[in-house]
Amino acid sequence: MVSWFARRRPEADSRRAEGASVRPRGASAPSTRIDFTELTPDLVPFLGQAAYIQLEMFENLSRAVALAPDLGAKERLSASAGVALRKHHALIEQLRRLGAEPAEVMAPFAPALDAFRRATAGSDWWEMLLSGYITAGMLDDYFTALASGLSPDARSRVVHILAEDGGAAALVRELATGIAETPGLADRLALWGRRLVGDTLLVARSALRSGSSAAADARIEPVFTELIAAHTRRMDGLGLTA
Amino acid sequence: MVSWFARRRPEADSRRAEGASVRPRGASAPSTRIDFTELTPDLVPFLGQAAYIQLEMFENLSRAVALAPDLGAKERLSASAGVALRKHHALIEQLRRLGAEPAEVMAPFAPALDAFRRATAGSDWWEMLLSGYITAGMLDDYFTALASGLSPDARSRVVHILAEDGGAAALVRELATGIAETPGLADRLALWGRRLVGDTLLVARSALRSGSSAAADARIEPVFTELIAAHTRRMDGLGLTA
Repeated sequence: MVSWFARRRPEADSRRAEGASVRPRGASAPSTRIDFTELTPDLVPFLGQAAYIQLEMFENLSRAVALAPDLGAKERLSASAGVALRKHHALIEQLRRLGAEPAEVMAPFAPALDAFRRATAGSDWWEMLLSGYITAGMLDDYFTALASGLSPDARSRVVHILAEDGGAAALVRELATGIAETPGLADRLALWGRRLVGDTLLVARSALRSGSSAAADARIEPVFTELIAAHTRRMDGLGLTA
Repeated sequence: MVSWFARRRPEADSRRAEGASVRPRGASAPSTRIDFTELTPDLVPFLGQAAYIQLEMFENLSRAVALAPDLGAKERLSASAGVALRKHHALIEQLRRLGAEPAEVMAPFAPALDAFRRATAGSDWWEMLLSGYITAGMLDDYFTALASGLSPDARSRVVHILAEDGGAAALVRELATGIAETPGLADRLALWGRRLVGDTLLVARSALRSGSSAAADARIEPVFTELIAAHTRRMDGLGLTA
């Protein structure tokens, strides 16, 4: 457990108690007041990380497509997988425009992100779905915030790519039905959600230009606060304790 | 082994011996001279079958993405998976335009097509790739030909959807490299290709409106001849005996 996580929790809880409404993605006010100069990686590694994360999201979602219990769920989840794949390919396209070889750029990030995917894959259908919802939501928000440190042109393209909606709808629908119909599932998924948020924040932290220095941690803190608040709203929306 | 298969083989071989060039998809001349009235299913089940086949292709390809031995292959195969997924969603969109519920329409075809996918999944990486190349190529060609029996408007939309290119390039590239570098692989894949063509023709036959009657078999025969000729060209292109 990293320290900011424990520190942020009460604030996230108080936001929830106030019934904070869900804000549009990337509109998190605090992040715009942060100087991202020493936080955001250069454009090429930024795109490489973001693209590989979408590929991992796609892999998890295509596994969910394969394992879907009925054709309706399979069909809806295939739309979610399509969104992650489109984001991946759009980010790859940005790399190609810069003359970078996507596989080479992504390679340094693969070991840690593969480990992250395995750690958050979940041991059953419900954990897999919650992971797809929570980790993708947090990381899309995070890379959208981190894009503030890119040139205005690059930032605008990245924000546009990550803003594509529709990936979460099928996951929320399946999860809501499962939680309503399955006694005990809400408690189990609440625990799993806590595990997911911890692992995801560690990935977010490792994506910083300067790695995990104390100075970087302090500067990025408001962004993490927002991520946790948004996470809490997602969990609330499913009736799960964050 | 079904009878037309044995009957068609000599002709396919003679075409290959003549060095027939690869024709654009759906341009198979004989199929346009066939009366498809009693062969092509109604539009809704036609779209349901075609859409579910693309979903199966997507599942196979996303499995290949997950198992890819390196990031370059993973990235290229993800583009192939994207093509199958786009075809699936475009066909689903056609169903929705007709007011049909895609999951309901696809359901009757799922058991046979799931069995087909399992039978053609392959026991290793190379068989998986050859299956993705051969079965998708034949079935796209087949449904393009069968679309001749739809209304001109529906036919044009279906042909356009199935004509999206780019799904095969990554598979061919991986296969060609593997065959060049791996002693014995060409012989093994030649055998696997024969199995694939047999299973795929059985799926094609079962998709006919009238099922597998002798009259339907006789009428669809020229289409199968074309399919086998195109298959032979694909195998030739990889240096494999068809």
